[in-house]
Amino acid sequence: MEVGLVGLGKMGYNLALNMLDKKHEVVAYDTVGEHVERIAKEGAIGADSLAALAEKLKAPRVIIMLVPAGKITSQVIEELVPYLEKGDILIDAGNSNYKDTLARYTQLKEKGIYFVDCGTSGGTEGARHGICAMVGGDPEALAYITPLFESISVPNGFLKAGQPGSGHFLKMVHNGIEYGMMQAIGEGFEILDKSPFDYDYEAVARVWNNGSVIRSWLMELMQNAFSKQPRLENIKGVMHSSGEGIWTVETAMELQASAPVIALSQFMRFRSLEDDTFHGKVVAALRNEFGGHAVVKK
Amino acid sequence: MEVGLVGLGKMGYNLALNMLDKKHEVVAYDTVGEHVERIAKEGAIGADSLAALAEKLKAPRVIIMLVPAGKITSQVIEELVPYLEKGDILIDAGNSNYKDTLARYTQLKEKGIYFVDCGTSGGTEGARHGICAMVGGDPEALAYITPLFESISVPNGFLKAGQPGSGHFLKMVHNGIEYGMMQAIGEGFEILDKSPFDYDYEAVARVWNNGSVIRSWLMELMQNAFSKQPRLENIKGVMHSSGEGIWTVETAMELQASAPVIALSQFMRFRSLEDDTFHGKVVAALRNEFGGHAVVKK
Repeated sequence: MEVGLVGLGKMGYNLALNMLDKKHEVVAYDTVGEHVERIAKEGAIGADSLAALAEKLKAPRVIIMLVPAGKITSQVIEELVPYLEKGDILIDAGNSNYKDTLARYTQLKEKGIYFVDCGTSGGTEGARHGICAMVGGDPEALAYITPLFESISVPNGFLKAGQPGSGHFLKMVHNGIEYGMMQAIGEGFEILDKSPFDYDYEAVARVWNNGSVIRSWLMELMQNAFSKQPRLENIKGVMHSSGEGIWTVETAMELQASAPVIALSQFMRFRSLEDDTFHGKVVAALRNEFGGHAVVKK
Repeated sequence: MEVGLVGLGKMGYNLALNMLDKKHEVVAYDTVGEHVERIAKEGAIGADSLAALAEKLKAPRVIIMLVPAGKITSQVIEELVPYLEKGDILIDAGNSNYKDTLARYTQLKEKGIYFVDCGTSGGTEGARHGICAMVGGDPEALAYITPLFESISVPNGFLKAGQPGSGHFLKMVHNGIEYGMMQAIGEGFEILDKSPFDYDYEAVARVWNNGSVIRSWLMELMQNAFSKQPRLENIKGVMHSSGEGIWTVETAMELQASAPVIALSQFMRFRSLEDDTFHGKVVAALRNEFGGHAVVKK
């Protein structure tokens, strides 16, 4: 199938290679010219503008965007849409907020353009060798792109999730679950690390990956991490987050869904970003006020 | 290897079959005579008392206990030990508290008997076809039983975890992580269930098991569960717990280890056991007191 690809960062570049392997014709664009040249050497057709990209594709066009969520995604759509026609399919494979997706879907629907949301998981390795794709959109658009997506996903790793927005929503919740699982795993090793026992964490992760209830890809990643750094000695416990955990918690609030562990996992990430906290100062001050307990002076 | 087995419940029965498959000579005892007869038909040597079990085994004896933690484990040890000799190895493969294990280790050490703790994961299916075993104890005892345990574990599913108690401690933390992971997964589906989208949960679990970051055995079990009940329509959300989550939280407290998500997962299990809560009454009463907000009357 002929596919346009906008965005040749780590994910986009690997997805391009994946699509080329599967014998798709890839027309690729990135704001960085060198990225375009690099993928052209691998067999893609380079485009030096969004207009050129649209021009090189036959209608109905299928174009995948793999660009940062938010403003940049909006900008790309705004610039690209004038060159698109009724019946074209524009796929946002980035981590967009599903509410933005719903707005974009409605906006493009008016022009007869299909807007498809694809929650993509599996990292750069997945992009290269087989993604996990959760895709929402109009049924006829999903039907059209199914052969493409089945070819670039791992077996059983492509889901037509449902209505527009359902793909990005599902990816958001996936990440919320991921935050909770990661925090639980982290806390388990925290307890081991403060225990009176002297565990080999790589061996622990290995045995937990073989026959135990908590065997998982995340635990495999920990086995790998501990094989490189037995005590993670060169890593500080600062836990950044990319936004989807926050959206999951906001969504839980809106839906009045009880999701305390996912919420707490997000709060623990915020906590990890601070060397000191104002709530800590408040509690220390209160203990001092009512009980004369010593405070740690700054 | 010649092995004694005490306890022929679901786990013990399946472990006996597993050991027989691996050509071990199994001498088996259970308080229920029918359980002994059943496994004798499969090739084990039945014993009608703990004394008989000890008598049928050559020294140094290797005896695995798979009996309920707590009182019953204590009783079995008390009854069995008079028949054991210096150099024998007694293995507790149940879910004992590691502090009980340490006390038992010390007590048996005085008699020259090796007490080995084995945290066992993988359920009855694992017991039958390959367990995940986290084993603590004196090095010479662990060395002696290594061929036995390697034969009954899945590949890479046997870990000499370290000192006495380290096996049960590791299994306890494993279960704490399990609680957190399960709660995170549960909350994710809770959000999906309250969402405006109409997901097929079996399909969602399937796609999450193929290429996504949260692929895991637990998610595979959910795929299986949803294949039988698309909306878990016949299950009430009552989350019992077997004690290891509580111990993990108690241990985190003792070690001053920050493990809020595991703790909260345990608290959510307690919450699920109650139709109404006293804290709920308190909060409702306070809202009524300060703001005149209506209360739901009983």
